[in-house]
Amino acid sequence: MKSRRGDTTTRRHGDGTLSPRVSASLSLRDPLITLLTDFGTSDYFVSAVKGVILSSNPEARIIDITHDIPPQDIEAAAFTLLAACSSFPAGTIHVAVVDPGVGSSRRAILVRTRDRFFLGPDNGIFSYICDSETNLGLIPEIFHLTNTKYFRHPVSATFNGRDVFASVAAALSQGIKPGELGTEITDIVRLSPLRPQTTQRGRLKARIIHIDRFGNCVTNITKKELTPEMIAGGAKLQLRKKRVTSFRDYFSDETGGRDKIFGVWGSAGFLEIAAANDSAAKLLKVKRGDSVIVSVGVETRYQNCKR
Amino acid sequence: MKSRRGDTTTRRHGDGTLSPRVSASLSLRDPLITLLTDFGTSDYFVSAVKGVILSSNPEARIIDITHDIPPQDIEAAAFTLLAACSSFPAGTIHVAVVDPGVGSSRRAILVRTRDRFFLGPDNGIFSYICDSETNLGLIPEIFHLTNTKYFRHPVSATFNGRDVFASVAAALSQGIKPGELGTEITDIVRLSPLRPQTTQRGRLKARIIHIDRFGNCVTNITKKELTPEMIAGGAKLQLRKKRVTSFRDYFSDETGGRDKIFGVWGSAGFLEIAAANDSAAKLLKVKRGDSVIVSVGVETRYQNCKR
Amino acid sequence: MKSRRGDTTTRRHGDGTLSPRVSASLSLRDPLITLLTDFGTSDYFVSAVKGVILSSNPEARIIDITHDIPPQDIEAAAFTLLAACSSFPAGTIHVAVVDPGVGSSRRAILVRTRDRFFLGPDNGIFSYICDSETNLGLIPEIFHLTNTKYFRHPVSATFNGRDVFASVAAALSQGIKPGELGTEITDIVRLSPLRPQTTQRGRLKARIIHIDRFGNCVTNITKKELTPEMIAGGAKLQLRKKRVTSFRDYFSDETGGRDKIFGVWGSAGFLEIAAANDSAAKLLKVKRGDSVIVSVGVETRYQNCKR
Repeated sequence: MKSRRGDTTTRRHGDGTLSPRVSASLSLRDPLITLLTDFGTSDYFVSAVKGVILSSNPEARIIDITHDIPPQDIEAAAFTLLAACSSFPAGTIHVAVVDPGVGSSRRAILVRTRDRFFLGPDNGIFSYICDSETNLGLIPEIFHLTNTKYFRHPVSATFNGRDVFASVAAALSQGIKPGELGTEITDIVRLSPLRPQTTQRGRLKARIIHIDRFGNCVTNITKKELTPEMIAGGAKLQLRKKRVTSFRDYFSDETGGRDKIFGVWGSAGFLEIAAANDSAAKLLKVKRGDSVIVSVGVETRYQNCKR
Repeated sequence: MKSRRGDTTTRRHGDGTLSPRVSASLSLRDPLITLLTDFGTSDYFVSAVKGVILSSNPEARIIDITHDIPPQDIEAAAFTLLAACSSFPAGTIHVAVVDPGVGSSRRAILVRTRDRFFLGPDNGIFSYICDSETNLGLIPEIFHLTNTKYFRHPVSATFNGRDVFASVAAALSQGIKPGELGTEITDIVRLSPLRPQTTQRGRLKARIIHIDRFGNCVTNITKKELTPEMIAGGAKLQLRKKRVTSFRDYFSDETGGRDKIFGVWGSAGFLEIAAANDSAAKLLKVKRGDSVIVSVGVETRYQNCKR
Repeated sequence: MKSRRGDTTTRRHGDGTLSPRVSASLSLRDPLITLLTDFGTSDYFVSAVKGVILSSNPEARIIDITHDIPPQDIEAAAFTLLAACSSFPAGTIHVAVVDPGVGSSRRAILVRTRDRFFLGPDNGIFSYICDSETNLGLIPEIFHLTNTKYFRHPVSATFNGRDVFASVAAALSQGIKPGELGTEITDIVRLSPLRPQTTQRGRLKARIIHIDRFGNCVTNITKKELTPEMIAGGAKLQLRKKRVTSFRDYFSDETGGRDKIFGVWGSAGFLEIAAANDSAAKLLKVKRGDSVIVSVGVETRYQNCKR
């Protein structure tokens, strides 16, 4: 593998501040392309995407993230992409297609962060990726994919995954520059911010951002918002009518007691609410989007700071 | 990648006419093998197929089309293969194993079209591929895989996917000629023809050939049978007791009205009957094989031509 | 591909006998890594494992065995691994993660057989692999993965598949020696032995070790325990209250009659109990672990031999 280095520049924000800008660059040797869709795996859709990529670039390596995002569930896709991408090497091209607006005027976009590329529809699917960059003080570059030269023709109005995104991913993997693929833009569709909000009463209002196959409920709480000291000091979670006061280091950890429901740090860096050998989501009747209120001791009350 | 060129010859049909014959040739560098089966993905079956291929030819790249064809559903496999294969590069080897007769006297075959190869049982699974070639005026070459030298031994009578088709695919990918794999034959098992039929009364009798995971009902109608002029002239589809008179350019297109059920050109080149944010198959209680009658204005009535 | 040769040595057993010892060695060119888990395919878990491997070793080829092992079902994983691995080339690294004890003090291990490597938790998942080696008179080498240098840090206490096993698999695929990954051990967790037992009354007590997606019930009976002569001599299987007296060479074979339920040699080398176009497991209400009693004619009664 060739070394992959980012180019650092700075650029002026709308608000006049300067942010570091570090842009991903690509390795052209054995480029890595991941796929995340709601296409399922029983039809020919996913294979057509792969066939188009390999027809253009036989050197590409293609890895599935998942194709079982619930149909048209953009938030599930946004979370899964965020959780997966950090395990991939710098320079990876991530294609994400959950696209209820396919064929309409919704834009096709490329997001370039400090170390990787994302291709998909402009419907919020890259929201958490962008939030995550912003939380690091970085600003991703975004391109509207207007150059139809890099599409597969004729473009099916019902299958842009194959005719736009796969085709552009192949071009990008062969060294075509983002600026050749379209025009730079600054505004994209965003979901609710990934970060929990601080309430007036000094509590933290978080939410369930994902429920996994085991029924673990992933919150948007990170160790920044809930420190070991806060947990040691008796932090509590309020989730629907259930109060969670028990925290474990791993699923089968019973050193802190045998409460059926507990918080545990998940592998994506977020606090999860889990149940011993059971589905927390079913036991608690939780669904994605439900609020989780975090309350801590008086001493460590959350500051209602501006973010 | 080496360039891939077909050799053109002609050959005499049973009926004495001559057809162009263009046969696929293979790139031996990084050969591409696709897999389509009804094996599911919860058992070890698919991995055994891949292991056998990679044991013989470590250079092979293997792509799944799907393994979730309903068990023993040959027509679903035939459609899915047809829809997928055109996205893959020339020279690709497509292995398709939906094989209720495994171990019996049904033949194992290789179909070589103008630009690719197909390996699987002789039970109709390559029917639509062959129809599609015929529609282009081409005749595929077909070989009965009789040379057991290229099988994996001992051959399990219940798993030819691993011991016959994977093993022969690996051999083919390494440059073994079709003629060395078996003897050429001309008759194979065929499903009902892919093309719609013209009725006595100047209407077109089509059928549902596939229902996808979203409940879209794929017909065997192409733009040859249903032109934009016919649609503009008020073409209608009759499907069970439901009449479909609305056509969209893409799923969320409401420029032509908000009818819940509509026709839309699918990504495989066939007209699909779809429902806005819903499963057309469920709403209409349609199953594969159901008739779709297309009627057009008097001026453009279908000619009862001989095909 | 470089040639792969094993090194042969001998070593002294606990009981003083000598066994041949042949250890797998690895090809460093395009190393092959397989994955078997209960992670499912709807979350980001599997892709994170792959991303970590490819981040360390871009040359690795990764093949899925399956990710649909029923959650925490170690026996299903043990069977599936045994059935799959023999189709892969010598030198393959098999990662198997069904790991209810993740994060606890259960050990992470490497098993090195005569021709391949296995990485996973020490919970019985490699039991059948080890039994199978023992049946050949060989002793696998086993290492406790104690060298955290080869882990991905920080190690998530809930996702060792990514942070321990994927990371160590990548290291192994790059030529790190097993002895550098940890310390050799001799005792590991074992499931019930794979071999059937002989009863006092000269019958064979076997069991159902797996039920596949088609409802075929895989027993632990091989052709060593049930020879063609025994079958010809009228061998019978007793399974719950059902007696099976019919044997077929392949699923659609009716040369021996049309009994709905029959025995057939499966592709993994074990006798399976199957039903014509139906699920034997459902018809017979069988579950994994159920006993299968084999009785043969007086002349060939099983000897209650010591194994």
